Amino acid sequence: MKNLLNGIEDVLLMGPGPSSVYPDVYSALSRSTLGYLDTYFIQIMDEIKALLQRLMKTRNELTLAVSGTGMAGMETCLVNLLEPGDAILILINGVFGTRMREIATRLGADVEVLEFEWGTPVKPETVETKLKERGYKLVAMVHAETSTGVRNPAQEIGQLLKATDSLYLLDAVTSLGGIEVEVDGWGVDALYSGSQKCLSCPPGLSPVSFSSKAQKAIANRKTKTPSFYLDIDLIGKYWGGEKRAYHHTAPMNMLYGLYQSLLLVMEEGMDKVFARHRKVHEVLVQGLEELGLQLLVEPPYRLPMLNAVRIPKGVEDAAGRSALRTRHKIEIGAGLGPLAGKIWRIGLMGHTAREENVQRLLSALPEVL
Amino acid sequence: MKNLLNGIEDVLLMGPGPSSVYPDVYSALSRSTLGYLDTYFIQIMDEIKALLQRLMKTRNELTLAVSGTGMAGMETCLVNLLEPGDAILILINGVFGTRMREIATRLGADVEVLEFEWGTPVKPETVETKLKERGYKLVAMVHAETSTGVRNPAQEIGQLLKATDSLYLLDAVTSLGGIEVEVDGWGVDALYSGSQKCLSCPPGLSPVSFSSKAQKAIANRKTKTPSFYLDIDLIGKYWGGEKRAYHHTAPMNMLYGLYQSLLLVMEEGMDKVFARHRKVHEVLVQGLEELGLQLLVEPPYRLPMLNAVRIPKGVEDAAGRSALRTRHKIEIGAGLGPLAGKIWRIGLMGHTAREENVQRLLSALPEVL
Repeated sequence: MKNLLNGIEDVLLMGPGPSSVYPDVYSALSRSTLGYLDTYFIQIMDEIKALLQRLMKTRNELTLAVSGTGMAGMETCLVNLLEPGDAILILINGVFGTRMREIATRLGADVEVLEFEWGTPVKPETVETKLKERGYKLVAMVHAETSTGVRNPAQEIGQLLKATDSLYLLDAVTSLGGIEVEVDGWGVDALYSGSQKCLSCPPGLSPVSFSSKAQKAIANRKTKTPSFYLDIDLIGKYWGGEKRAYHHTAPMNMLYGLYQSLLLVMEEGMDKVFARHRKVHEVLVQGLEELGLQLLVEPPYRLPMLNAVRIPKGVEDAAGRSALRTRHKIEIGAGLGPLAGKIWRIGLMGHTAREENVQRLLSALPEVL
Repeated sequence: MKNLLNGIEDVLLMGPGPSSVYPDVYSALSRSTLGYLDTYFIQIMDEIKALLQRLMKTRNELTLAVSGTGMAGMETCLVNLLEPGDAILILINGVFGTRMREIATRLGADVEVLEFEWGTPVKPETVETKLKERGYKLVAMVHAETSTGVRNPAQEIGQLLKATDSLYLLDAVTSLGGIEVEVDGWGVDALYSGSQKCLSCPPGLSPVSFSSKAQKAIANRKTKTPSFYLDIDLIGKYWGGEKRAYHHTAPMNMLYGLYQSLLLVMEEGMDKVFARHRKVHEVLVQGLEELGLQLLVEPPYRLPMLNAVRIPKGVEDAAGRSALRTRHKIEIGAGLGPLAGKIWRIGLMGHTAREENVQRLLSALPEVL
């Protein structure tokens, strides 16, 4: 039978994720599968936990990788922290804030939102005013809005929330491993990320972390978490403690890949990895400007790993991306929602964030403009 | 830094899953990651769908792999088919039937169960009597109970349900790829499986299929599916149709592995694969009996791919399994729930189901008895 795998091309992934995968991570994926309660496998899980704690700058015991993609991580946080009627305030300036609203609404929460123009950041002063109106069980924000390339003020919102009883939920899908994330320092109570962005592992896992305050809130639920698969208390009992209890069969090979990618980040050094992301972002921005292109986001709020560039007049969105993919084997991302057809999203995440990759894109772009 | 991946041993996985992975599947996992809307990747998704339809013997349009483990597949079926108050009858004779009850209860369904002794099959005549009492929106059963090694009468229950309005949900986690599964022929309306059993791909994906009757029931829901991540309508729009809509970032590399494992099954021939499972099961049973060991399940109800053997008096459960793992690099499984400490579970799934593997176990067993 024809095997399509033989026709897979090596594409430079410069879209919104997945990013290009580290060669060592590909090797890790192929290591021999072990049993889900194998003591050696459990050692690897323990190391993943320790490495995630380092990367997230947290001492949270409940730190692990959920067996699903970043969206599963978002749902894990919301489904465990919210019960029907619970008040949540969601700060929205892009697709992923909107997704949180969708999930919280499905869970029957009392959902309020503050919306900010897409392409601009969440404004702490607006949030501060809103927080004086009433209390919320949970306040949620996306750190790095993958749909726009905006960096939201995660530390400042954390500071505001320290004066309240609210739990603080932060989406770090695109930020973790590319810019500083400080769970404990910023007062984040629940955080989720994804394996396929700045960690440059394929998609399929969602690192999460819950503070002891969040764990207490979960322990005090009146109703059971409606999702069994994403019940963080049960998942935590598989990932920690003396006696590991079966909950589901962990995806070993994906976890090998995540473990390897975390090791690579630590071996390079977190600060150096972050500096590399900043550096290649600057090279990209300069190159784009020299080509006469404009970025969507104002300089102080730009993410290094996700660059939203306005599609110039007369250039056709899909045709341009398709030419890059077909002729140059480079993938860049389309705009989403109100930004569809208006921007391209150029990712510089993890292993993709190399100057030679930026040069390859900058050399190819004139042909499609 | 120390890399634990270098210390992973090649273990013969003869437990309840994961099974030993096909070498070609390991290679598939390491193929270059593609974008989640890449046209070539979408071709691979289309092929996976077609191969799953063949293996499941179904023409169901809504056939795909959920981005989570078998437990996510179970939850996908229940969360989409059940609304609060909906009546479900669950036929329980092991851990996984019990799991369905747990999930259905969390979803607020009106849950009734029929329980059968663990180690014995579901009795169609008892079910028939029960079905005369009232109607159920959904009747659910596990085809191959991984906790006991019992094969439940999937076809017979389907026959009974054809005379009712009930939807029929079948857990085929352990059966798919090892014994015949006939979705359309048996009248199954929703089915879920796992990648890590008889398909011999690592864990992380759950093949599912929904009939048009099930799709209609989902379309007629009064409330939105409480899970966004597992919303089968949205997932289906990513896996099918003219314009693929982003729902989550698919785990490409795991899907490459599943695709390869399905190709291997088709290349060997489904009937030959099933015959191989039966054959090695017979060799194992004969060998176990020659060692004086007894199986839990009566011959007519035994699964070829999961063999529950009673631990002889005087043999210590954990020590025996540990000796096999440490000295012989063979993993077998422990008993669960009421069978903990009483049985071992010997899996002969997919690539593990080879006569040389059975001989290796039979040579090692006397040492631990």
